[in-house]
Parts: sequence; C-alpha cells; structure tokens
Amino acid sequence: MHIELINTGTELLLGNTQNTHLAWIGRELFPLGLRIAKQCTVPDGDAIREALVDALKVSHVVIITGGLGPTSDDLTREITAEAIGADLIEDEAAMRSLEEFFAKRKKVMVESNRKQALCPVGADILPNKNGTAPGIYVPPRLGNGTAIFLLPGPPRELYPMFQDEIIPRLRALAGIDEAQKMQELKFIGIGESDLHDLVDAQLASIPGLELGYCARLGEVDVRLIGKDAAIQAGKNVLLEKISAHLVSENGDALEKVVVNRLAEKSWQLALAESCTGGLICSRITDVAGASNVFTHGFIVYANEAKEEMIGVPRALIENHGAVSEEVAIAMAQGALEKSGADIAAAVTGIAGPSGGTAEKPVGTAWICVAKKSGEIITEKVLHPRDRISFKRAVSQAVLFKILQAIK
Amino acid sequence: MHIELINTGTELLLGNTQNTHLAWIGRELFPLGLRIAKQCTVPDGDAIREALVDALKVSHVVIITGGLGPTSDDLTREITAEAIGADLIEDEAAMRSLEEFFAKRKKVMVESNRKQALCPVGADILPNKNGTAPGIYVPPRLGNGTAIFLLPGPPRELYPMFQDEIIPRLRALAGIDEAQKMQELKFIGIGESDLHDLVDAQLASIPGLELGYCARLGEVDVRLIGKDAAIQAGKNVLLEKISAHLVSENGDALEKVVVNRLAEKSWQLALAESCTGGLICSRITDVAGASNVFTHGFIVYANEAKEEMIGVPRALIENHGAVSEEVAIAMAQGALEKSGADIAAAVTGIAGPSGGTAEKPVGTAWICVAKKSGEIITEKVLHPRDRISFKRAVSQAVLFKILQAIK
Repeated sequence: MHIELINTGTELLLGNTQNTHLAWIGRELFPLGLRIAKQCTVPDGDAIREALVDALKVSHVVIITGGLGPTSDDLTREITAEAIGADLIEDEAAMRSLEEFFAKRKKVMVESNRKQALCPVGADILPNKNGTAPGIYVPPRLGNGTAIFLLPGPPRELYPMFQDEIIPRLRALAGIDEAQKMQELKFIGIGESDLHDLVDAQLASIPGLELGYCARLGEVDVRLIGKDAAIQAGKNVLLEKISAHLVSENGDALEKVVVNRLAEKSWQLALAESCTGGLICSRITDVAGASNVFTHGFIVYANEAKEEMIGVPRALIENHGAVSEEVAIAMAQGALEKSGADIAAAVTGIAGPSGGTAEKPVGTAWICVAKKSGEIITEKVLHPRDRISFKRAVSQAVLFKILQAIK
Repeated sequence: MHIELINTGTELLLGNTQNTHLAWIGRELFPLGLRIAKQCTVPDGDAIREALVDALKVSHVVIITGGLGPTSDDLTREITAEAIGADLIEDEAAMRSLEEFFAKRKKVMVESNRKQALCPVGADILPNKNGTAPGIYVPPRLGNGTAIFLLPGPPRELYPMFQDEIIPRLRALAGIDEAQKMQELKFIGIGESDLHDLVDAQLASIPGLELGYCARLGEVDVRLIGKDAAIQAGKNVLLEKISAHLVSENGDALEKVVVNRLAEKSWQLALAESCTGGLICSRITDVAGASNVFTHGFIVYANEAKEEMIGVPRALIENHGAVSEEVAIAMAQGALEKSGADIAAAVTGIAGPSGGTAEKPVGTAWICVAKKSGEIITEKVLHPRDRISFKRAVSQAVLFKILQAIK
C-alpha cells in the first residue's frame, strides 16, 4: 500500500519548528507492516494543492497534517474538496462539538472558527479530543481510489486522533493480518563499510528480509525487517560474524545496556573522566535507574584534580604524561578505591584543538577499566576529530569497554 | 529562488531517526533571505530518482542529503549523474582524501569506499572534514539550469560542509547583497511568548529589519537580519527591554560565554552535580580552552558521594533531604574547598521518573553558586519534564546562574 504524507506549515520550512510528525507516524505504521513511501513538507496555503495532486496520482493513501485551523492560510480542507470535486457543507455534529468546545472554556466562538465544521459531502468527520479542528476522512470511492486523511497539526491533537481513528481505518484498507516485524541490532567498534563487507551479501540472500543500515558516530545500527523466520536468519548471520561488536539486539542504547547489565550483577560503577569531561557520567545518568548502579563520578580535568580527587601520584604524571596507560590505570584504581565501587572506568586523552604532539596527537586517549577483583583492562584509542565528536567517540569506546568487562 | 530539499533515508520514514536537517537548513538559509519551497523525504535507493526528476522541473536549487555512503543502497551519486546525463569518474583529489582519512586512523580502506571518490564529470567535489563521503556540487550549466548539491547525511559532516561550501555558493547563485547581515542574540530565562509580547511590536516597526525567533529548551534565540543600521536598532530594543536575560550577542552558546568570562577574570570553576549527572561538566568541556578555567568536577550522584567527595555532612542530608537549599550550599562550598577554585556551582534535584513527593515533585532542583569571597547565591527551579529535558533545562539554569555570578 503506497502511503504518502504531506506536512503543511511554513514554520517547518523556516526551521522554527521541528517536524516530528514524520518520525512519529512512521513508528505508528511500522507494526502494521505499513510504511510511508514518501513525505513532503510544503508551506501553508496554495502549495498544498500541487503536493496533493502529485500524491493522488500514485498513492493508495494520502495523509495531510496541518492547515485545518481557522485562519486564512488554513486551506487544506478547501483544497482537498476541490481536488476530489466535492462540495463543502457544514457538518451538524462537528458544529455542535465546536460550540461545546468554546462553551466549556467560556470563550466566544468567532466567525472564522465556523469553517472548521465544514466537510466534503460524503466524507467522515473525525472527532478532535484536544482542539477545535476535527479531522476528515475521504474514503477511496470519493477520492478516485485514494483514501485521504486530513489531520490537525498540533501533536496533542494529532496523536490521539491518529491512534483512535486512523489506525483502524488503515488496518481495514490494507486488509492486515500478520504484522511485519522489525528488529534493530546495534554494533560498535566496527565501521559501516567493514560491517557491510562482512555481512551484506549473506543478509541480502535471505528471502523476505529487508535491511536498513544506520551509521552514527562510533555505532552502526542494522535493522532487519520481515517475518519471524527471515529476521531470525538475519540475526544468525550477524551474531555469527560480528557478535564481538554487538551492543544490543533490541535497539537499546549503549548506556542503557551498561546500566542494565550492572543492575543485573548488582554492581556499582565509578567513573573518572579527564578528556571526556563528564560526558560518560552524563550518558549513564540519562538512563532511568542509573542511581542504582552509579554513585561517584570524578571529573579530573586538571592534573591537580587527578592527584587530589583520586590520588594519582604526581610522579606518574610527570614521568609518563597525563595521557598515558599508567595514568589511566592509576585513575581507574583511584576511582575504585575512593568510591568503593565494584568496577571503575577511567579515560585520559587529548581532545584538542591544541595539546597534541607527534607521539601523542590530538585524538589520542587511554582507557582503563578496573574491577574490585583486581582485573585491569586497558586500551588506546585514536579519534582525531573535532572536540565534540572526539568526546562522543571516546565515550562510546569507554562504555563498550565497561560492557565487555561486565560480561 | 526556488529551493527544494530532498532528504534520503529509509530510517527517516520508518521513524527511527528524526529528520532534523529540514529545520537546521531552514534556519541557515533564513539570514540569506532564502527559504525552502518544498521538502521531501524518500527512502534509500531508487525512489530518489523520481523525487529528483520532479524537483529539477521547478527548482533553481536542489539540495539532497544522504545516500553518499559506501553501501549498496547509497545511490544518490549515481542517480544524480544519470539525471543530468553525466558520467561518473574517480576524482583524484577525493581519492587522496579518502586514502588519507583511512591512513590517519590506521584503518584499511575497503573496496566499497572507493565509490565515494566518484564525481560526475564537470561537477565539484566538496571536501568533508568529518567523514569519508565528500559532497558534490553540480553547477547550473551542468544541471540544465538547476544547481544541485549532494551532501552527506550525518549532521557533523553536513553542518560544516553546508556552512563552508554551500552558503557561499548560494549567496553567489542568488546574487545576495553583501550588506545583508545577520546577528543572533541568545536569551535565557524568558519564554518565547513573553519575549514576543515585550519586543515584537517595536522590532516589527524597524524598517528593513527581518526577524526570526527560535525557541529551544530554556533558551530563545532572536535573529536580526538586515543592514547594519537596522540590526543596531533591533539590538537596542532588545538590550533595553530584556538585557537581564541576555546570554550572547553573537550566537555564542551559553557554555562558551561562561568559559570566556571565566578566562577574562582568570577564575577557576569547580562543579558539583547530582541530578544533572555530569552534563554541566560535559557542556563546559565542550568548549575549546575549557582546561584554562575548569579543573574539578564532582559527580556526587549517591548521598555517600556527597559526603565522601565534598564533605556534605550526613546530618544535613538526613535533616533537609538531598534535594534542599542547605545541601546545595554545602555541595558548592565543599566543591570550592576541595578544588581551591574561585567559584563553584552545585545542583541537586529529582530527575525522575520516580523519587518525587508532594512537597518535592519530580523536576525540582536546588542550585547554588558560591564564590571564594564568601558570596552565595541559591535558586530553586522546577522543570517537570522527561529525564533528558530536565537535565538540559537544569544545566541551562546552572550555567546562567554562574554567568550572573561572574558579572
């Protein structure tokens, strides 16, 4: 079923408002095995006409958001009626709802609100729980074979209407029986092209499996789409080839996986950060329930702070430099000791733009994870990027190191 | 100038990734007096062809994001070359950049990366500072009168390329008056509608001044666009009416302003964070040069950490609760003492989703800024939002409090 989405609103194109409708509706449709084939954003007013005419040519379903308000640039209703060659008439029930809406709020209904009760002859009014603009459903017989949904723009009006009125109609239109499924696996420590080279050919040969890759900084998400058997076959390929890089099989973010694994073990985590400057602590505390596993964070940005807060010997810093394996180990051990945690991770590096040397260029970082048991893991990473990306990439590496150490 | 934007990416239509390119590019174009006439999102692969062909019919400029990666569903380059009837050839400089990118990271370049150096004959390669996929510029003479920009999808690759390579070319294509300038003033602690009510009528009456407002979490940016005199007149209005809320007159982020002001005073900052969990430290260390002013960060997430790391008396926590003015003050004073800094800020609050009470609901936070001089400022804030937004909003409040204390 070819579904197109048209979002109307000049503010979306000017960038004053983020268009969140696309992602929200995309996620709502997914469990039905439906997806948006194409989405457009057009300004308020006449531009809607052209977008609608184009969409009607190829779509089974067109969803339009916005432009149902009372003002002069709210033209979605009028343009749609014209496109399907139907007259607009005042819907009695819609008018009553409008009057009740204003009466309830002890407000006077102005004349311009009356047009919100207009509906193309033969179309259905969709009640709006949270606003004055009802939605409109044009069934395929009226839309020359295309079903058209007109929905209000504000999310708190759109969301309940979509779930209550649109989803059931889409199910009926598509004759949905078994929902298509999706599984998202997150991998880290492997580039998108390496991952692709390792698994794509094999994945592509699985019948009924659709693939999506999404590369983020220090992370590649692979989405498997299809029925259970196809997804399982895809998962088997991925786990066989690159399980060492697996973060989660359910789309969970790395920090969430770390917090959950720590909670399963009833372990407490301490962190000592230099070059990442608090980002790792912040990512851990983004996760609800972080307080069960995370207690102490030492942001030891200055060398004195490394000494004073977690007892890194000054001589160690002088002899090996602040960015060294030795100092990373001393930081992790110091954090462990000062906090009484079960596991501690530490990182020291050169975020730049200045401070690099030939031997230790900007982007170098030493990571150490230390456990109460005495076990120590270290790793040197190199992420010569801008400051913010460096921090992000290094925080990924540290969190993944923690995850490996917990396993 | 009719500009269309085509965003490619199946993940955008599935809703797994929010499309933030539209709003970002819309805001970048605004100061040039340009705007996006229409935007489309299409899946990876062949669907790009149809969208491009449609856009070429009516546009002076078409901007396409995404689909320049190394994988088999990255087809933007190929489809564009086909649409303009140009062959793709390997660009020597682009190939050298690719090789350098991998060499610098000591990684092996796989075969699939090679296609990222392909460029339509006669088009320009746009260097990518932060990734492997260069952009491509097809000038109007090659695009049958339409200029086409192909840009990488990841924001950290797209943003600098857009600012460095696209903006100057759009200026030239549109013949934009060099005298047209933009100034962005950032305000905090005032809602968008309050700010609007206070200044909009007066600003709107200034001849030759165009206005843009952009509200973010805990921040409103006002963009003044026009010639020098108009911008100055607009600035005067803003500074007269709401200077108490001013963060910066040049678009500088709050954390950058804080770091710069501290550097001007040669002051050292220490931070003690509970509910924000390291976010404030991380924001400060996002700024190049942070190491000159920031030394110690105490992420005292657990009550024991508040005691052990910065000497908050256990009795104080027991008597007043961890989220209290008394504890915030003790935290700031403890951070000041332990670090030897000139100024310290502390925050303790309830991020939720659990842990709230009738008296101290989720979203409550106490902030304290303490100076070596003995001066103490406290503030209670309430941001009943989701966890991530709460952390962000509270970090804004803390950084602004620091700024006020420095002044």
